[in-house]
This record gives sequence, C-alpha cells and structure tokens, in this order.
Amino acid sequence: MADTPQCIAVDWGTSSLRATLLGSSGQPLGRVARPSGIMAVPNGNFAGELEMACGAWRQAYPDITVLMSGMIGSQQGWIESPYLEAPCDMKGLFASMITVPDVDGQIYIMPGVRARTADGAPEIMRGEETQVGGVITANGVTDGLFCIPGTHSKWIHVRDSQIHDFATFITGEMFSLLKNHSILGRLMDPEDTFNLDSFTQGLERAREAGGLLHRLFSARALGILEEMTKPGLASFLSGQLIGSEIMGARALYGGSDTVQVLTTGMISEPYAHAFDWANISTVPRDAEASALAGIWAAAKHIQEL
Amino acid sequence: MADTPQCIAVDWGTSSLRATLLGSSGQPLGRVARPSGIMAVPNGNFAGELEMACGAWRQAYPDITVLMSGMIGSQQGWIESPYLEAPCDMKGLFASMITVPDVDGQIYIMPGVRARTADGAPEIMRGEETQVGGVITANGVTDGLFCIPGTHSKWIHVRDSQIHDFATFITGEMFSLLKNHSILGRLMDPEDTFNLDSFTQGLERAREAGGLLHRLFSARALGILEEMTKPGLASFLSGQLIGSEIMGARALYGGSDTVQVLTTGMISEPYAHAFDWANISTVPRDAEASALAGIWAAAKHIQEL
Repeated sequence: MADTPQCIAVDWGTSSLRATLLGSSGQPLGRVARPSGIMAVPNGNFAGELEMACGAWRQAYPDITVLMSGMIGSQQGWIESPYLEAPCDMKGLFASMITVPDVDGQIYIMPGVRARTADGAPEIMRGEETQVGGVITANGVTDGLFCIPGTHSKWIHVRDSQIHDFATFITGEMFSLLKNHSILGRLMDPEDTFNLDSFTQGLERAREAGGLLHRLFSARALGILEEMTKPGLASFLSGQLIGSEIMGARALYGGSDTVQVLTTGMISEPYAHAFDWANISTVPRDAEASALAGIWAAAKHIQEL
Repeated sequence: MADTPQCIAVDWGTSSLRATLLGSSGQPLGRVARPSGIMAVPNGNFAGELEMACGAWRQAYPDITVLMSGMIGSQQGWIESPYLEAPCDMKGLFASMITVPDVDGQIYIMPGVRARTADGAPEIMRGEETQVGGVITANGVTDGLFCIPGTHSKWIHVRDSQIHDFATFITGEMFSLLKNHSILGRLMDPEDTFNLDSFTQGLERAREAGGLLHRLFSARALGILEEMTKPGLASFLSGQLIGSEIMGARALYGGSDTVQVLTTGMISEPYAHAFDWANISTVPRDAEASALAGIWAAAKHIQEL
C-alpha cells in the first residue's frame, strides 16, 4: 500500500527551486527541480511558480502543508520572514515560521537567522539553518562546527543543539567573478577541469603572507611567465580561495574539531582535498538530505501544535 | 626662443595612451592623451595609433626619439620587451630597452620587471618601474618603500637605488568587480560618492579575523539589516579593500618606513586617509610627473651611449 504524503518540502533559493514530497516517515516520495530561482520568477508570481512545480501534488492531496526554506523568505522573495537572532534552537526556528497569506492551503516559510561574529559584525543566512537543523535532529549532532560550501559558504558553530554563531565566506562567488570578469580569468580556459596539482599549489599559496588581494595576483604572474600551464590556472585560483576560506574559518573557530561538511555534487571533491590538506577531519553529509530532514522536523513541529 | 624638443615620452597602458613632448631639461612642452589603450587598438595597428597621437611632433622633429613604457611592451602590446629580473638598477633597466623594428625613427620600449616575493611567488610589472625610476633619479630617493595605488596596486621596495622586490595587490580591480558584478554591489548606488565615515568603518573591518572572503560579506549583511545606509556601502567596501592592501603590505614589508605614494587624481584621497589610519607617514608624489622623469632619465642614457 502506498505511503500517505505528509508535506511538501521546498528549497527555493536564488538560482533554483527544489520541491520534494515527503512520506509518513519523512522519506522522499517524489521530486521536482526547476531553474526558477527567486530572481527568475516573472512579475514576482511566486504562487504561479509554486503551482507549476507542485500543483499536481497539491491537487492530489488538498490538505497537504508546504514548508519552504531559503531565499524565498528574503526581501526579494515571496514574503519576508524575519531573521531570528542567534543563538537559537530548532524550536525557536520552527516557532518563527511565517505563513503565506491569501493562498490555498498552509504554506510556511522558515525564518532566516542573524548573528554577530566575535568582532561585532553582522551575519545573515537563509536556508542553511534548515540543513543544520536536519543534522541536529536526524543525526543527533548537538555540538560542533559545520561547513556548507557554496557561492556563499557558511561556517556554523553549533553548541547544545543551538545555532550559536556563524560566518560567511564569499568563496564561490569570488571564484566565478575572478574567472569570468577579471584579468586573472583572461588566461584561463572556460573548460578547465579540476587539476589536483595546481589546486594544491593554490592551497599552499593561501598560507603565505600579504593577504588575498596580493596572493591572487600570482594566478596572473604564473601564467604570464609560463610557470604554470593554462589548464591549471583555474584550479590554482580555486585552491587559493578554498584554502583562504579554511584558514579564515580556523582563525575564527579554531582548527581542532571535526567539521560536518554538507555538500551536494561536484563541490565535494575540492573541499575534501582542502580539508585533508589542512589536517581537519570531516564528517561528510548530503546537503539535500539534511535540508529535507530539517523541513521534516519543522513539519512534525507543526503537527504537534 | 623656443626650447628644442628632445624626445617623446609615451605611457601606453591597458586603457589609455599618454604622449608628452619633453624639452631640453625634460620639461613637458606638449601633451596628448587618447583612450586607445593597447586592448583598444584596431588590428594591432600600433604604428598607426602612435602616428595619430604624435605624428605632428614627429614630422616637425624628424629625428626625435620616442620612449614608451607600460603594457605596450607586453605580449598583448606592440613588441614584447623582456622582463628584467629584480634586483635591478636604472642602468640595467635602460640597457634592457628594446627598439621597435621596421619603423621610421628610433622607438624604444622599456622592459618590464619580474621579481619573487619572500615565499617564492613570481611578480611582474610594466610601467611602474619607470615611475619609480623617476623618483630615484629626479628626487634622489635611493631607499624606501613605494606605493603606486591603482587597478593593480604595486608596493615596491627600493634599496641602494635598485628595485629590490615588489608586490601586487588587485585592489582597484577587486573594487570594480565587487561593485559591478557581485551580490554585494546590488545594494550599492552606482553614483555613490566618497563617504569618510563608512570608509573608515571599512578600514577598521580590515583588521578583523577571518580573511577577506569572510569580511567582505559584511558589506551585504550591514545593508540588508539596514545597519549601514546604502550611500555608504561602496565607501565601506573601498575601505575594506584599501585597508586589506595596507595591512598586507605591512605584513610583507613592515610598517615603520615612510612610504612614497605615487598617485594621480581622485585615488589620492582615500589612500591618504588610509595611510593616516594606519599611522604610516607618506611622501606624496605625482605619478605622471614621476613617469616623465623616469623616461627622461632613459632618454639621457640613450644620448650618452
């Protein structure tokens, strides 16, 4: 006998929408992915876009609850869900979900989280809190350091099952900027594949003095002087950036802990090498599964209300 | 009686060409500036472009020597002039000038300079060696640290009238990338004017832990959380970057020396504030006048051959 769907989990970010139908124990029963990130929704018609993604499920199960996380709750999204102040626990997060008004059925949006780094600078995130919540609730990890690599990598410090504080690194966006728009990128092939040797040279370079603005230029000088072959330059740049991220996170959070690394797909490989290089042991977690576990915990919270 | 022109100094970079007619004591007798940087010369017709800029002078003084510096000697320029290895003195630089073949008259191109930072990474420059040479020869500065702010800022360590070593910081290019292409820039007004308070907050942020990839994100978080007004965000970003440059240069070269700062135009003001903030005393120099003095010293070297 088929399992009864319990809710629809929607991870709606800047560049894509992923909807998953979850069964009676939180397991995925079906998936839809669309490239309609919040910036690509015509006329802000989020209701229409959600209907395109999972209208069939909502017709089949009229009372089903939809739980959304990610940039859909930002100023540029559907409805702004406030930032909850860290430290905060999962109960606090779930209690801060907002509902979308004037729609059929119950549609919830997770809050973002804000925090301050040790020096008082503000930090914000949307979506990552749900992934971390999944590892806390589904895997029972109540303390430790989490890394979610990406366009804007997040390092999240969890203590006593709370999101205590966190830090953003614009590693992925910087790579894309430098490769596609800077003078450094002019020497790189658009189709460069991952080159471990050049990547490792980049990691080593990240240890050197003078700061990133200085060190990055060697991606040009090495190319011009033909001390590194062109197919390696993009990996060298990637190594510098990921190395800088890990060194920076170590400066903020220390380096002795095991890090929970939440990734999906291609990004895993370079980060795995970089953590090895830095002698940091890791527990790999699937980012998508963690997000679903976080939404599932939120769904159970709603049922218990 | 009119002075007899001695040579034409051409500073030909990536974005512009500036030609100056120099008199019998190296003083400027006339100037031409064109937006035809080496990347904007149709079909690589550098001879034609030079003719457009100073053909009239060359007709009036048929034997006049042309001395060029900058990216015109790069792989993408007219003829590649080799990189001279630092440490090198002015005589070594002048002796390494190349002449452009198959043209009317004598046209010289200054060499670039290459060096290694303390950790062995390669460095290259073209054009800045001529500016530094001008301060050495015209102002008698035989030792010290030079800073030439710009798209790719150079910090040059001069010892015993030699270019000993140097370091590049991609400060200006990074500002432009982040403001025009990154998510940080989306919150900024294109017409932001310099805001000293926000700039100083950026300088302070540059002192904090976690590295530039982390710190930069506060330009977004402060804007989203409305803890900084939008007109200040670009200056905040600029302060972070220039602050990081100065901190990085200090890590490489120490901070106790007076710095010779070679600037032209608008860039002077933020750097002046940043040096004050860092408690580094400076000697301001006009970058264009320094370049002319360097070319003039090269011209005298040719005359003495």
